[in-house]
Amino acid sequence: MLQRLNHVALAVPDLEAAVKTYQATLGANVSAPQALPEHGVTVVFVQLGNTKIELLEPLGENSPIAAYLAKNPKGGMHHLCYEVADIAAARDHLVASGARVLGNGEPRIGAHGKPVLFLHPGDVHGTLTELEQV
Amino acid sequence: MLQRLNHVALAVPDLEAAVKTYQATLGANVSAPQALPEHGVTVVFVQLGNTKIELLEPLGENSPIAAYLAKNPKGGMHHLCYEVADIAAARDHLVASGARVLGNGEPRIGAHGKPVLFLHPGDVHGTLTELEQV
Repeated sequence: MLQRLNHVALAVPDLEAAVKTYQATLGANVSAPQALPEHGVTVVFVQLGNTKIELLEPLGENSPIAAYLAKNPKGGMHHLCYEVADIAAARDHLVASGARVLGNGEPRIGAHGKPVLFLHPGDVHGTLTELEQV
Repeated sequence: MLQRLNHVALAVPDLEAAVKTYQATLGANVSAPQALPEHGVTVVFVQLGNTKIELLEPLGENSPIAAYLAKNPKGGMHHLCYEVADIAAARDHLVASGARVLGNGEPRIGAHGKPVLFLHPGDVHGTLTELEQV
């Protein structure tokens, strides 16, 4: 089921400071910030040779990363996103395996415009896990 | 400086249970466990199309992931490892940028038999960051 690692998402309290670190200190290729108000984040992509890191800063009220940053004020690793070929088949297999899909249990359109679902971290040994159909 | 994402390391309290989740629930390709007593962990590799996930379980006394699991008993995301071409040059650049290299400040031989260093997570917005020379 799992194919490529699509991205690693890191929550940061200050995107401008994080961009500076990844560009100047770590010498990485960093995109311009993109505000995604419907997803409650501003995102920057750190492009690596084989995958990407997404730096996420909260945007607006009810950001999905606000609770994480309240617990981890310096920021940190928020979730992993794996690619799958068929998200409906993935959902069916996960539910049959006893894993909990967050929200209403159905895939929704994610920040990249593709169908995604999130698994409860309690069912994946503490790691918030996203699946994206590519 | 940063090239490929070499791996994402997830700390887990029970490697056998985690292997079952990644194999049976997530349908991933998982290696046999390898005990690395000199690194204080038993490791399993989840092979993805473009990178790998390392599942780490503490091994022996003074495991480097014991403190993390004491704080996060269910497990979770422990560190990211990026590949660099020249770790001595990376170290010099990082130190000149004010970032702290853990341990004695010098690269050491990591779990893959290659030179690595770890940056203080406080200097990378809360994410424990490893660099490996490949």
